[in-house]
Amino acid sequence: MGTVDYTFPQGADEPHRRHHTVEAPEPQPFLKSLQYSVKETLFPDDPFRQFKNQNASRKVVLGLQYFFPICEWAPRYNLKLFKSDLIAGITIASLAIPQGISYAKLANLPPILGLYSSFVPPLVYAVLGSSRDLAVGTTAVGSLLMGAMLSKEVNAEKDPKLYLHLAFTATFFAGVLEASLGIFRLGFIVDFLSHATIVGFMGGAATVVSLQQLKGIFGLKHFTEATDIISVMRSVFSQTHQWRWESGVLGCGFLFFLLSTRYFSTKKPKFFWVAAMTPLTSVILGSLLVYFTHAERHGVQVEGIAVGRSFAMFKNYNIDGNKEMLAFGMMNIVGSLTSCYLTTGPFSRSAVNFNAGCKTVVSNIVMAIAVMFTLLFLTPLFHYTPLVVLSSIIISAMLGLIDYQAAIHLWNVDKFDFLVCMSAYFGVVFGSVEIGLVVAVAISIARLLLFMSRPRTAIKGNIPNSMIYRNTEQYPYSRTVPGLLILEIDAPIYFANAGYLRERITRWINEEEERVKTSGENSLQYVILDMSAVGNIDTSGISMMEEIKKIIDRRALKLVLANPKGEVVKKLTRSKFIDDKLGREWMFLTVGEAVEACRFMLHTLKTEPASKGEPWNNV
Amino acid sequence: MGTVDYTFPQGADEPHRRHHTVEAPEPQPFLKSLQYSVKETLFPDDPFRQFKNQNASRKVVLGLQYFFPICEWAPRYNLKLFKSDLIAGITIASLAIPQGISYAKLANLPPILGLYSSFVPPLVYAVLGSSRDLAVGTTAVGSLLMGAMLSKEVNAEKDPKLYLHLAFTATFFAGVLEASLGIFRLGFIVDFLSHATIVGFMGGAATVVSLQQLKGIFGLKHFTEATDIISVMRSVFSQTHQWRWESGVLGCGFLFFLLSTRYFSTKKPKFFWVAAMTPLTSVILGSLLVYFTHAERHGVQVEGIAVGRSFAMFKNYNIDGNKEMLAFGMMNIVGSLTSCYLTTGPFSRSAVNFNAGCKTVVSNIVMAIAVMFTLLFLTPLFHYTPLVVLSSIIISAMLGLIDYQAAIHLWNVDKFDFLVCMSAYFGVVFGSVEIGLVVAVAISIARLLLFMSRPRTAIKGNIPNSMIYRNTEQYPYSRTVPGLLILEIDAPIYFANAGYLRERITRWINEEEERVKTSGENSLQYVILDMSAVGNIDTSGISMMEEIKKIIDRRALKLVLANPKGEVVKKLTRSKFIDDKLGREWMFLTVGEAVEACRFMLHTLKTEPASKGEPWNNV
Repeated sequence: MGTVDYTFPQGADEPHRRHHTVEAPEPQPFLKSLQYSVKETLFPDDPFRQFKNQNASRKVVLGLQYFFPICEWAPRYNLKLFKSDLIAGITIASLAIPQGISYAKLANLPPILGLYSSFVPPLVYAVLGSSRDLAVGTTAVGSLLMGAMLSKEVNAEKDPKLYLHLAFTATFFAGVLEASLGIFRLGFIVDFLSHATIVGFMGGAATVVSLQQLKGIFGLKHFTEATDIISVMRSVFSQTHQWRWESGVLGCGFLFFLLSTRYFSTKKPKFFWVAAMTPLTSVILGSLLVYFTHAERHGVQVEGIAVGRSFAMFKNYNIDGNKEMLAFGMMNIVGSLTSCYLTTGPFSRSAVNFNAGCKTVVSNIVMAIAVMFTLLFLTPLFHYTPLVVLSSIIISAMLGLIDYQAAIHLWNVDKFDFLVCMSAYFGVVFGSVEIGLVVAVAISIARLLLFMSRPRTAIKGNIPNSMIYRNTEQYPYSRTVPGLLILEIDAPIYFANAGYLRERITRWINEEEERVKTSGENSLQYVILDMSAVGNIDTSGISMMEEIKKIIDRRALKLVLANPKGEVVKKLTRSKFIDDKLGREWMFLTVGEAVEACRFMLHTLKTEPASKGEPWNNV
Repeated sequence: MGTVDYTFPQGADEPHRRHHTVEAPEPQPFLKSLQYSVKETLFPDDPFRQFKNQNASRKVVLGLQYFFPICEWAPRYNLKLFKSDLIAGITIASLAIPQGISYAKLANLPPILGLYSSFVPPLVYAVLGSSRDLAVGTTAVGSLLMGAMLSKEVNAEKDPKLYLHLAFTATFFAGVLEASLGIFRLGFIVDFLSHATIVGFMGGAATVVSLQQLKGIFGLKHFTEATDIISVMRSVFSQTHQWRWESGVLGCGFLFFLLSTRYFSTKKPKFFWVAAMTPLTSVILGSLLVYFTHAERHGVQVEGIAVGRSFAMFKNYNIDGNKEMLAFGMMNIVGSLTSCYLTTGPFSRSAVNFNAGCKTVVSNIVMAIAVMFTLLFLTPLFHYTPLVVLSSIIISAMLGLIDYQAAIHLWNVDKFDFLVCMSAYFGVVFGSVEIGLVVAVAISIARLLLFMSRPRTAIKGNIPNSMIYRNTEQYPYSRTVPGLLILEIDAPIYFANAGYLRERITRWINEEEERVKTSGENSLQYVILDMSAVGNIDTSGISMMEEIKKIIDRRALKLVLANPKGEVVKKLTRSKFIDDKLGREWMFLTVGEAVEACRFMLHTLKTEPASKGEPWNNV
C-alpha cells in the first residue's frame, strides 16, 4: 500500500506535484478467491443468507420453509386470502380447461391428459413453489415441440400406447433435467438466451402453431406433418376443393368473438374476467351448437382432445430461480407418474392469475379442484366440442404471443438485436422449431462474442474548467491536451479482443501523430490509457499490454496508465508488467492527475532537458 | 445537447448546486453506424489508409506494392542487404533440410516431399509475403495432424499413391481456406484461441510428437498408430525385448549433442549458428557413421524420409494479418500443385532467421536455392541417414515447444488460464490432437462466456479531501457516504449478465440496508450506479435497468446514474428509460457531482420536507 498525499486538489494556479497512488487490493489466498468465484457463479442471489447466525432449531424451521414454501404461508393463511384465491383459481380454471384440451392436439396426446396435467402438477407446485402469481399448466409451444420430437420416433396414430409411454418418459426426464439444473444451481444457463431471441422464437412458434390450426378452421382431413410455412401453405391451398365453408364460418366467428373480448379486456383492465371466461364459453357454446344442430354432419369435425405446455418458462424465467427449477422438476417427475405431460407456468395464464388478485399458490389448488370436477362431471360435454372452436382458442392465444411491439422496440433501440430476433423467427417459421431454437442460441452466442471482440475505444478530452476527462465524441466541447493522447478502453481485455485492441490503439497513435504533423502542433509525447472501464484482464490481455508498451517505446513515447482497477493491477503486478516494464510511477488514480504529471514533465523537460526520472515524486 | 455550467468546482465550502449535464453523442444514421461496425469488425488495422488522397497512378503503384510487397523492397535492394540475407538463408536452410526430412515421417509422406516443401513455397512467399523475418517451411504439429487425419481415411503403406493424392488435395484446400479467410478479412477468428490454450495445445502436441519418436530411439519395428500417451507407453513397454541398445545409445548421444548446443546458444546468443547447424551436422555425422560401420545391421534403422509444418501459425499469428493469410493460402495452393504439402512460417525457424540477421524475404529465396542444391546433389547421402538421428532432431525441436515457463507464468498470474492450458495439454496427450484442439477451443469460449456472465461489482467510497470515488476494497482508506450507496458495474451489460447483475445489485442494497439498520446510521436514500465501465448495453440490459429502477422505487429509494457512456445514453434514451422512468435530472457526469446533488437534496429534505423536484437545477 503506497502512501497518500491528501493535498490534492489545491488552487487552480499551483502546479499539482503530488498525486494519489494506485493501490492493489489486499492479496487473497487462491482458495478464498476460488470460493468467491464459485459463490458468485452459482449462488449470486445468496440463497442461504437467512440461515446465517441462527441457532439449530431455527435453522431447521427456516430450512423447511426454504424447501417447502407452504410451511411459510400456511400458518398465516386466513379466510380473506382464500376469497381472493378462490376467485383467481376459478378464473384460471376457466382458461386452463379449454386451453389444456386444445393444446393436447398439438402434442398428439388424448385430450384427457390435458386435464390431468392441470390437476396433479398444480398441487405439487402448491407445496414446493414460491411464486404466488404463477399458474401451472401446459403450453402451446411446449406441446408442439413435444409432438414434433416424439412423432419423429413413433407414429401417434399407429401406436398410440407406445407414443403415450414415450410422452411420459420424456416428461419424466424433462423433470429430472429441471430438478438437476436447480440442485446444481445451473439455472443461469437460461441467461444465455437473450431477450431478442426469445421474442423471435416465441413469435415464430406462435406463428407455426397458428398455421397448424388452419387444418381445423378449414375442416381439412389430410394435412402435412411438417411445421414450416411453405409445407403448410402448400397443403392448405392444394386442397381448396376440400375446404368446408360451415367450419370456416364457425372458426372465424369464434376467433372474432375471442379477439374482440380480449381487446375489450385490454382496454378496460377491470373486466379482465371477460377475456378469461371467453374460451370456456366458446367451448360450451360450440358443443351445444353441435349437439343441437348435428353440425358434425356438415363438415364441422368433432373430437375428444389433448393438451401441453412448458416453454413459457422462457417468458417468465425472471421469476424462476434455481429453486423454482427444482419445483418445476418435481412437478414434472410426479406428473409423469400420474399420466400428466410437460407442464410449467405459462405467462399468459399467470398474468390472468395476477390480474384476478391471487394471493398465494392456493389459487392453483382451487384450479386443480375445479379441473377435477370437470374431469368427474363434464367430460361427456367435451364429446361434442367442435375442433374448429379449439383451433380458434389456440389461434387467439397464439396471436397474443406474437409480440410485434417488442420487435418494433428492438428495431428502434438496437438494430442488431432486431436482426437476432428476426433470424430466430424465420428459423422457426421456415425451418422447424428445433432449427429455430438452435439458430437462436447460436446467434445469441455469436453476437456476444462479436460484441466482446470489438470493444469501443475513444479519445478523451478535458471538460473545460474541471479535472474531468471525457469521450470527445460524446462531449464535443471537451478539449484535447497538446502533446498527450488520452485513450479509453471500454471493456475488459480478454484474448478475444486483445489482438483488435493492439491494432486499434496503434491506429489511434498513428492517426494522432499524422494529425499533429499536418497541423504543426507540439509533437506527441505521452499516451495515457484510461483503464477505468477495464474490469478484468487475462494473460492474452497482459501480452497485449506488453506489446503496446513496446510499440509506444519504439516511437519514443511514454505509456501512462490511469485508474487501473484492482483485478487489473493485481494481474499486471504478478506478471511483472508494472514493476519491470511500465514503472509504478506511471500509474495514476485519475486521468486528471496523469495529465497534470505529464504536463509538469513536459514543462520540466523544456526548461531542463537533462532531467530524468519523475521529479514530482521527489518534491 | 444540454447546456453546461462551467462553474464547477468552486470553493470547498460552497454547496455545488450546478453540475455538468450528461450528453448523448450526435445521433448517427443507421447505415453510417453499420458501416462503422463492419469496418471495425473486418478492417481494424485500416489496411487501405495509405490509398486515401492519392491520385490514380499512385494508387496503382501502391496497390501493386500492397498485394506484391516484393515491388516495394526490390527496387531498393542492394549488395549489403544481400550479404545479410545470404547468411540468414544458409543458416535456416541448414535447419530446414534435416527438420523437413524428419517431419515428413510424422505425416507418413515420402522424405523428398519435405524438401520440395522447403523449395517452392518459400519462393511464392518471397513474392507475396510482407514479413521479413518469417522462414517458410513445414511444422511438426501440422505434419502430425495431417498424418493422423489422413490415416483415418487411407492407409499410407497399403495405398501410398492415393495417400499422396489425398495429402496434396488437403494442402490445396487448406490453401483455399487460408486465402479466403484473408480475402474475407476473417483472420480474427484465430483470436478466439486464447494464449493459454495455445501454450497447452502446443505443449501437448510436442509431447505427443516426442513420444512417437520412442519408436525410432529404441529401434522398434512395430508401433501403435494411436497418439495418446497410454497407447504409446503400452506399445513401448510391451516389447522391451525388442529394444536395440545400439539405437538407444546413438539416439541419446545425438539428443544430448543437440540439446547441449542449443543450451550453449541460448546462453551466448552470438553463437546462435552453433545450434542452427547442429541438426545438419547430426544428419551428416549419422549418415557417415552408418555408411562406414554398417550400423543398419545392428538395429539402427535407416530410411529416406518425409516432412511437415503448419501449426506454428498459432505461435506467430501476431505477425499474420489477413494479408499474410492470403500469402500463406497462395503458397499452399501453388505448393499442392508442385508436390509440396502443408507449409507455414514455423516460429522456431523464423526466430533463427531473425537472429541470423535477415533483412528481407530474400533469405527465403536463398534457403530455397540451398534446398534445391541439396535435392540435386545430396539426396544420395540421405539414403544412409539413420532414423534415430531424425528422431533425436524431432525430439530436440519439440522440447523447445513445451513452454513450461509460460505455464508457470499462467499459474502465477491467472489460475483459471492455467486450468485452461492444462485441459488443452491433457486433451492432446491423453486423447488425440483433434480432441485437444476441440477441448481447447470449447474451454476458451466457455471461459469467455463465464467471464462475461459474472462481471464484478463494487462499493465505491470517497478518497478523502477529493471529489474522487473509488472501489472501497482496492482503496481501503476511502470513506462511504452516509445515506448513499455507490455501486460500480465493471463490464458492459448484455443478456448473459443482466440476470446476474439484477440479483447482485439487489443483494448489495439488501446488505447495505441491513448494515445501516444494525449500525443505527442514517437510513439509505440514494443508490448511485457508476456506469463508467459499462461500455455498451443490449435490450436485455435495458430491461434489467428497468427492473432495478422498479426494485429501488419499491423501497422508496432513488436511483441515480453517474457517467453513463455515449452508447448507453443513446440506447437508454431510445428505449425511453431516461425520460419516462429515470428522469434526465438523475444523471450526472461524475460520481462526485451525483454525491453533491444527493447530499444537497438530503439537506433540503431535512429542512423543508415538503420540497419536491430537483432544486439545484433551478438555482
